[in-house]
Amino acid sequence: MQSAAYVGDRTITVDEAEAVAPGPGEVQVAVAYVGICGTDLHILHGAMDARVSLPAVIGHEMSGTIAVLGEGVADWSVGDAVTVMPLAWDGTCPACLAGHQHICQNLDFVGIDSPGALQGRWNVRADLLVALPEGLSLEHAALVEPVAVAVHDVRRSGLGAGDRVVVLGGGPIGVLIAVVARDAGAEVLLGEPDAGRRAAAEALGFDCTDPTSGNLTDTVEAWTGGAGADVVFEVSGAPSAVLAATDIARVRGTVVVVAIHPQPRPVNLQRVFWRELTIVGARVYERTDFERSVELLHAGVVPADALITQVVPLTEVAEAFHTLEQGRAMKILVDCRAGA
Amino acid sequence: MQSAAYVGDRTITVDEAEAVAPGPGEVQVAVAYVGICGTDLHILHGAMDARVSLPAVIGHEMSGTIAVLGEGVADWSVGDAVTVMPLAWDGTCPACLAGHQHICQNLDFVGIDSPGALQGRWNVRADLLVALPEGLSLEHAALVEPVAVAVHDVRRSGLGAGDRVVVLGGGPIGVLIAVVARDAGAEVLLGEPDAGRRAAAEALGFDCTDPTSGNLTDTVEAWTGGAGADVVFEVSGAPSAVLAATDIARVRGTVVVVAIHPQPRPVNLQRVFWRELTIVGARVYERTDFERSVELLHAGVVPADALITQVVPLTEVAEAFHTLEQGRAMKILVDCRAGA
Repeated sequence: MQSAAYVGDRTITVDEAEAVAPGPGEVQVAVAYVGICGTDLHILHGAMDARVSLPAVIGHEMSGTIAVLGEGVADWSVGDAVTVMPLAWDGTCPACLAGHQHICQNLDFVGIDSPGALQGRWNVRADLLVALPEGLSLEHAALVEPVAVAVHDVRRSGLGAGDRVVVLGGGPIGVLIAVVARDAGAEVLLGEPDAGRRAAAEALGFDCTDPTSGNLTDTVEAWTGGAGADVVFEVSGAPSAVLAATDIARVRGTVVVVAIHPQPRPVNLQRVFWRELTIVGARVYERTDFERSVELLHAGVVPADALITQVVPLTEVAEAFHTLEQGRAMKILVDCRAGA
Repeated sequence: MQSAAYVGDRTITVDEAEAVAPGPGEVQVAVAYVGICGTDLHILHGAMDARVSLPAVIGHEMSGTIAVLGEGVADWSVGDAVTVMPLAWDGTCPACLAGHQHICQNLDFVGIDSPGALQGRWNVRADLLVALPEGLSLEHAALVEPVAVAVHDVRRSGLGAGDRVVVLGGGPIGVLIAVVARDAGAEVLLGEPDAGRRAAAEALGFDCTDPTSGNLTDTVEAWTGGAGADVVFEVSGAPSAVLAATDIARVRGTVVVVAIHPQPRPVNLQRVFWRELTIVGARVYERTDFERSVELLHAGVVPADALITQVVPLTEVAEAFHTLEQGRAMKILVDCRAGA
């Protein structure tokens, strides 16, 4: 089979490898499609070298079918279409014991901390599998993981029907948050500096604004009758967006921190105090978010075709990363079927 | 009557003034005691000159008795012991319409934005009065307002019995938060750099630690079995405390922003994301907080005598501010009775 691995030095290579039989409690998945995520790009850039073991087979957004059942695996059959919720928790840390297994203090994020899906055959713990319904294509199913992120972010925000919501950042996760929030009945304004990304989001029916134009606050004030936004999602990672987020939130409004901010960022705590704002962090997803994501994709709520810019064979994975680096794609899927 | 006013240039003077009859819907209160608050000190230092009109009669922590009823005031009698919840909202802004009148977008904070209690007789809107029960002394009742702040802060935190709570900042509000949290069943650790303040809090039965000693995180880790604190109150205003607050909070823990931070502060948003923390702002109080505060003082839960460092006559108000500036007092009450 073929297997793509990050080998350090901003390099990803595709090599032949021997498929290994699944261990007890595991299944071997014939991988169909793997989406490349911003985190994968961070790994390629060396920013996560402390977490990955080289050579690292990465990839955690995927779809496939079960090829082999390991010892003791019941409830699944060869041929089942599946995706994987790539979180393995220890079940014993204080966070797990408090019911927050998805952000276990010793979380193994499969595809980062342990081997991922960018290969023809992938051995995975059966308890991480999520069944795909008939009628959901394996291409679209490769989006289950990022859609689950958006579902989780929206759930953490507590937004309701009729709420006015600003999403700062129009990359894949920002657009998916906008999609999920709209489906929940919210009115959405997307802030994105890049004209091309704004045009793409507008084609999906979203009102967009350039948050760097200097009149974001006025725009949101006017839109909300002077109240401010009920919920603001910070998905951009930009320091200026962090300051803007508290400026545009209404009294008792909520700011959701979705983006990674590697450095401490100046936050207007005076505004947090004055308007009694709530800032919440939202990371990965819980099982319920994954299941809801499958439903949303199955129901056609997520404009999957519009979000998938390209599908490339596993042998062209390095070029795909390069395209993403240039900001020339929304979501690229890697077709791993020929590498099985 | 006598009246104390901030006249600019770090100066507060006491002058003779004519008592005016209360207007329709108002009562004239014979002021008993007025507590001096950190905000009053900010006003004296000129930091709030944009909000006050000179000469400004300040003071918003008070107790007294009704001396005169204005036209149309029912439900109150001359001689009733009262305090004042010093918030006057417009009732028409988006925050008010959403039910958050206490942080009205055009709030009139009585004693800052309009005349306060540092005078012998004070005309106040009857709807701002809060009745004091028999058996609660007027000295202790002067603490109703700051205790209500603490009640509100604790309520915003959502803490419950058995929670492990860290309060960063051991001034009057920090200690009151510790008192209210302990009464709600929480275990409390107070972080305060000043040894004298730590000793005062320890005398009230609180475990204290010096947060600048460099081992706050280890202390909280050890105390919580590696989990982190359920709730952290940031009451210090110090930038270092803002960074510490997210470090010591558990997965899904809550940080409450109580202190005023005039500048944007670096916040570890990576930690907010990673542990799915919640940061909430808490400002002033709602009616329910004021009423609960009266109950707590009446029940003797608040160690009022230990918190009241000094009681001075109105004629010595300037010296009282000076003592507070030096950090040589917790709470000073101004006795306004002789100035009626």
